[in-house]
Amino acid sequence: MIKYDKQHELDSVNGALAIRPTVEKVVDEICDRGYDLICFMGIGGTWASSLQVESHIKELSDLPVLVENAGQFNAMGNKRITDKSVVVFSSVSGNTAEMVVAMETLKARGVTTIGFVDVSDAPLAKDATYCITYPENEQLKFFMVADRFMKNAGQFPQYDEYYAQLDAHLAEALVSVAEASDEFACHFAQEHHDDQMHYFVGAGEQYGSTYSYAMCYWEEQHWLRTKSIHAAEFFHGMLEVVDRDTNVTVFLGEDAERPLAERVARFLPRVCARYTLIDSKDYELEGISPEYRGYLSHLVTHQVTNRIDVHIERINCHPMEIRRYYRQLKY
Amino acid sequence: MIKYDKQHELDSVNGALAIRPTVEKVVDEICDRGYDLICFMGIGGTWASSLQVESHIKELSDLPVLVENAGQFNAMGNKRITDKSVVVFSSVSGNTAEMVVAMETLKARGVTTIGFVDVSDAPLAKDATYCITYPENEQLKFFMVADRFMKNAGQFPQYDEYYAQLDAHLAEALVSVAEASDEFACHFAQEHHDDQMHYFVGAGEQYGSTYSYAMCYWEEQHWLRTKSIHAAEFFHGMLEVVDRDTNVTVFLGEDAERPLAERVARFLPRVCARYTLIDSKDYELEGISPEYRGYLSHLVTHQVTNRIDVHIERINCHPMEIRRYYRQLKY
Repeated sequence: MIKYDKQHELDSVNGALAIRPTVEKVVDEICDRGYDLICFMGIGGTWASSLQVESHIKELSDLPVLVENAGQFNAMGNKRITDKSVVVFSSVSGNTAEMVVAMETLKARGVTTIGFVDVSDAPLAKDATYCITYPENEQLKFFMVADRFMKNAGQFPQYDEYYAQLDAHLAEALVSVAEASDEFACHFAQEHHDDQMHYFVGAGEQYGSTYSYAMCYWEEQHWLRTKSIHAAEFFHGMLEVVDRDTNVTVFLGEDAERPLAERVARFLPRVCARYTLIDSKDYELEGISPEYRGYLSHLVTHQVTNRIDVHIERINCHPMEIRRYYRQLKY
Repeated sequence: MIKYDKQHELDSVNGALAIRPTVEKVVDEICDRGYDLICFMGIGGTWASSLQVESHIKELSDLPVLVENAGQFNAMGNKRITDKSVVVFSSVSGNTAEMVVAMETLKARGVTTIGFVDVSDAPLAKDATYCITYPENEQLKFFMVADRFMKNAGQFPQYDEYYAQLDAHLAEALVSVAEASDEFACHFAQEHHDDQMHYFVGAGEQYGSTYSYAMCYWEEQHWLRTKSIHAAEFFHGMLEVVDRDTNVTVFLGEDAERPLAERVARFLPRVCARYTLIDSKDYELEGISPEYRGYLSHLVTHQVTNRIDVHIERINCHPMEIRRYYRQLKY
């Protein structure tokens, strides 16, 4: 496979899972003190990851969780975030402008913050109450935090069994997905690398990744136009612009909102000849129990989209690193 | 002005404001009993209206509010909605499929519901704990509920003064906006009625209306392709697909998130020659104090977009009533 380092992928996921004792220590300390709110805060891709973990928590528990966009927080504030609240965030660079500003407010308010910052001496790393430094794997980090909060609240009793399976099998399983999807991904890229417009539909944990894939990958990195839409909303407006030649991809996961995506998947063939389904169910996850697959299906489809990206990049001769405006201009 | 009945508009807004004593009675009763959560529930346009009122409440108070999508609620549930919670919804037909299903769950759980249902003998009207029947003006209804909850919590002391101004001046002020914007709207429609793609950007209370305008008007009623994006998110991906010929409209309101939209408005002229700003500040609201304009700016821009719609409909010879698929097919 082009642009794929299997050993790096295995090490990356296993390394992320290995930070779990640190995550547990932090969350356990906070639970011992008590908290009134768990807020996942981000912007762009990290905001999308926050939506994913919010969906996961909502499916399984009644924990008081909310997602806050760092840019909106700086403009409007959020009076519900108090000195008893926990704010969880992630920043690869550790200097995301909006998050740096937000952090000043959070510090002044005495809010407890858990930061996953990939650069250990970056401003956000220094300012977080708890900083955990490990590269990539943002979703896995957020979900480990969430699962520990739910376990401590007595609402995720499967915690130990589930993580034993991840520790033993997740990394290999995800590599297998990448390998199994590469041929499809190459074909998909050939079909869609020059789309004038591409619609992406998802639900549940897949919604955050659908939004992020459309905006942070196709728009930002491939300069291809997209719209993402929640499957529940598809039938309340967007369907009217779908015709034979409309490019639509539906992501199907295995959590409680799967039926919403399935409804779109059933509708499309009647009106559209350019639709694609990317379904986590199509991929084996050896060693993972069926009842846990729903917690992971966004990681599965992400393996597939990663392979699509590699092929689009190659066909379009458009390196994914380049930006037209982002960090090229001051604005 | 074509397709404009001034007296109807005046009567419609004044009639909506006249239901306020009923709204107050309902909210006061609920506040006397106590509640643990205020949830605005909707799908499509009513979900978008819910986002608007959530933004308004968040700006001014720390009330426990959340927005739930009825379709997602039916698939995933929401364990935080209890028999002490209040769910507020709106349905023109009174038989919105997703909301009818959601209502069964809410009734079984003993949740208090406030329904604005335009048809008084529809299923949703019968099932709501409190049903208030008055046509149109969905945002005004939701905001009256929100403002009363905030007043009762001691977080909206300006309530009486503010509503005295609305009662005396709002209807006339909105008619003046429609009249003042018609020429611009006609020109905008001439420029954009055949766009292959149009981007809409908004923040704060304007975000819900931006999302709704893109999806429920351009896509659903004009069959024109759009993408809507929150102004805070614009700089985290979408900006990369904007070039000289990209059609982008930014809605600017006057609430706390205005600076987010202003940032996009400042950026666009540098990279794009087909952008438009629709700014509530450009319109006089006689009799409304400056400090209250932010609560109403979504109603102002809605007057402008209503006029745009009339002109697009005329130019495109595409009656806004017709649907390709919605309620034409079973799905």
